[in-house]
Amino acid sequence: MANYAYLDNAATAPVDVRVIEAMMPYFREKFGNPVSFHECGLRASDAIEVAREQVARLIGGQPGEIIFTSCGTESNNLAIKGLARRGIAKGKHIVVSSIEHFSILHPVRTLEKQGFKVTYVPVDEHGIIDPEQVARSLRPDTVLVSIMHANNEVGTIQPIEDIARVVKKSGAIFHTDAIATAGIIPVDVQKLGVDALSLVSNQFYGPQGVAALWLRRNIGIDPLLEGGIQEGDIRSGTHNVPGIVGIGKAAELAWNEMPKRAKKLTSLRDMLIEGVLKNIEHTILTGHPEKRLPHHASFCVRFIEGEAMLAYLSSQGISAASGSACAAKYLKSSHVLAAMGIPAELAQGSLICTLGIENTKADVDLMIKELPPVVKRLREISPLYDEFIRRNKK
Amino acid sequence: MANYAYLDNAATAPVDVRVIEAMMPYFREKFGNPVSFHECGLRASDAIEVAREQVARLIGGQPGEIIFTSCGTESNNLAIKGLARRGIAKGKHIVVSSIEHFSILHPVRTLEKQGFKVTYVPVDEHGIIDPEQVARSLRPDTVLVSIMHANNEVGTIQPIEDIARVVKKSGAIFHTDAIATAGIIPVDVQKLGVDALSLVSNQFYGPQGVAALWLRRNIGIDPLLEGGIQEGDIRSGTHNVPGIVGIGKAAELAWNEMPKRAKKLTSLRDMLIEGVLKNIEHTILTGHPEKRLPHHASFCVRFIEGEAMLAYLSSQGISAASGSACAAKYLKSSHVLAAMGIPAELAQGSLICTLGIENTKADVDLMIKELPPVVKRLREISPLYDEFIRRNKK
Repeated sequence: MANYAYLDNAATAPVDVRVIEAMMPYFREKFGNPVSFHECGLRASDAIEVAREQVARLIGGQPGEIIFTSCGTESNNLAIKGLARRGIAKGKHIVVSSIEHFSILHPVRTLEKQGFKVTYVPVDEHGIIDPEQVARSLRPDTVLVSIMHANNEVGTIQPIEDIARVVKKSGAIFHTDAIATAGIIPVDVQKLGVDALSLVSNQFYGPQGVAALWLRRNIGIDPLLEGGIQEGDIRSGTHNVPGIVGIGKAAELAWNEMPKRAKKLTSLRDMLIEGVLKNIEHTILTGHPEKRLPHHASFCVRFIEGEAMLAYLSSQGISAASGSACAAKYLKSSHVLAAMGIPAELAQGSLICTLGIENTKADVDLMIKELPPVVKRLREISPLYDEFIRRNKK
Repeated sequence: MANYAYLDNAATAPVDVRVIEAMMPYFREKFGNPVSFHECGLRASDAIEVAREQVARLIGGQPGEIIFTSCGTESNNLAIKGLARRGIAKGKHIVVSSIEHFSILHPVRTLEKQGFKVTYVPVDEHGIIDPEQVARSLRPDTVLVSIMHANNEVGTIQPIEDIARVVKKSGAIFHTDAIATAGIIPVDVQKLGVDALSLVSNQFYGPQGVAALWLRRNIGIDPLLEGGIQEGDIRSGTHNVPGIVGIGKAAELAWNEMPKRAKKLTSLRDMLIEGVLKNIEHTILTGHPEKRLPHHASFCVRFIEGEAMLAYLSSQGISAASGSACAAKYLKSSHVLAAMGIPAELAQGSLICTLGIENTKADVDLMIKELPPVVKRLREISPLYDEFIRRNKK
């Protein structure tokens, strides 16, 4: 059995050695600024165009439709602010789900302050968005709809195709945050029927600091970063050439190896889910039992405070998450679990395990071995658990 | 003599091997997301805090005042939009110089469309900004002044201390774009007297894809990228940990080696300037003869079209620039040279050489050897030169 297990791959994952190898020359031997007018510049420019093809292929888009950015937050901010502001002639109404990532919800809130109206579509107990609900939320002045492809906290995969059909009829632009899915499960922008899609390198074993927004040809967008002439004037700033080479290579590998990876991840995930539910009482699986990401196992462990659980697990060599990966350090009650109707008391015990291609059965075994004593220890000092036991004895 | 010379270090430079070594572990062995609540997260968090100290030290700021971003354009956009919008209670007037980089001028133009008023301060024939001119442009409703520390096209270093004194009296926030200077010449935010300062990793042999905005404590700013909780909520988005480690290491090296580097660069620069002016007639040095960056040699070669010159030089193994590095591929007449009163016909022949610590005398020699025949060949097909010769014969 392993004595260390990293089960937080959605927060960030170790970069694939083949990706690092591909990136390395671009720091020195093949360095260059793609906008320079000489050999070094052309070499760098060629490298990012190869990456553009690799990323486009991963999601069924055209290379010319890929805009490289620095992170998922930037892709999502660019999509929300850039598409909403550009579409202002049609109207100032936006539709999002209530379980979007904060990199969608925060810019939406900013737009709200600037006079946009926003409809937040609810989800069911599994975190699923009903296309009918989206249909009912659409108005003649709806300019933008943004619904995530899969949720990062509970792993639920949305019926994006059905939602897209509904949105298309309205004439609104449809963006999907595919950060949790691109490179993990098949994502095809044509099949999904979306107009814009965000994806992030370090979700599929590429480097941090690079991401992309796919934007369907001929759709206008206001830039967020202005100044140079990069990325068709939609995203200015000197290119991160090694990073872009890295996301390209990672996309190529994800495309080639996806079925093999998904098979392995699904098997580990199911083992983990079964082991946790069997060994820890008063625990539920969050998210949809079937329509979920292959690497995603999320739970609520009752009578437990998530932060304490993470700290204890970490001391046993296990890295996991609770609530949003981006807020793990600053635990607030999860807006996702609340939207799914999970009571705050139960949501407190959120535990999120995201597997990666480097995980093994030994990692899952370690978690299943170490979690029960951690939970036991924490429940022993929980007044809520104490009360529960006393009541049940009566 | 070398058969290849890279003289475009301001566009981007090869990353220092010691910086690459420092970064490498953070792709795999020491990977992590700094906001994660476990050992890997804490390890990543510690790494970026070390980098924050290294970058702060380079410019005489406090670590807590460093905001990591993805590129100089982002730092400049964040400063301009974030400070102007936050300061709206004081007024809606902005002062910039007429030779700022487009990552300053474009967001300023966007703010102008949103109702801000802008004063563009002129420069003299050497590209110097007169603090008196800045003083005259200040109004009671001036909320932000942004003047670059040194210009990237002509290498002129501005009297920022004197300008800061003038701005301070007015109560406006003073930002300086120090992208061309930080890591190259001494930059001390206290001595300069500025409130905010942009700097970029790949200007001092760090990696692309990472930069910083230093912002004096207690100065409010509106975020550009919203969503997570990173960088004190001023810059959300998963950290580029290897990149941040890289800018930190590069800052440390720049700090330690600056005098030695400057001495070498100045010597090569002066050789290059002398050689070009001596060997190419009808050529002027642009920018200030003394108050210029130690690695910067810029010229206007009359009767020459810059783009063609770059192409010929590239075919002889020499990488150089013309006009702004960021626009080299899409040559427009330079707004900087125009602001300095250089006629468009002369500005067309802009040639910018920026030296780096890996350059040698052999690189300079190659340039001095190859440039005259390139210029000769181009002048032979220049109708303007032809006319000039005919006139002078009369």
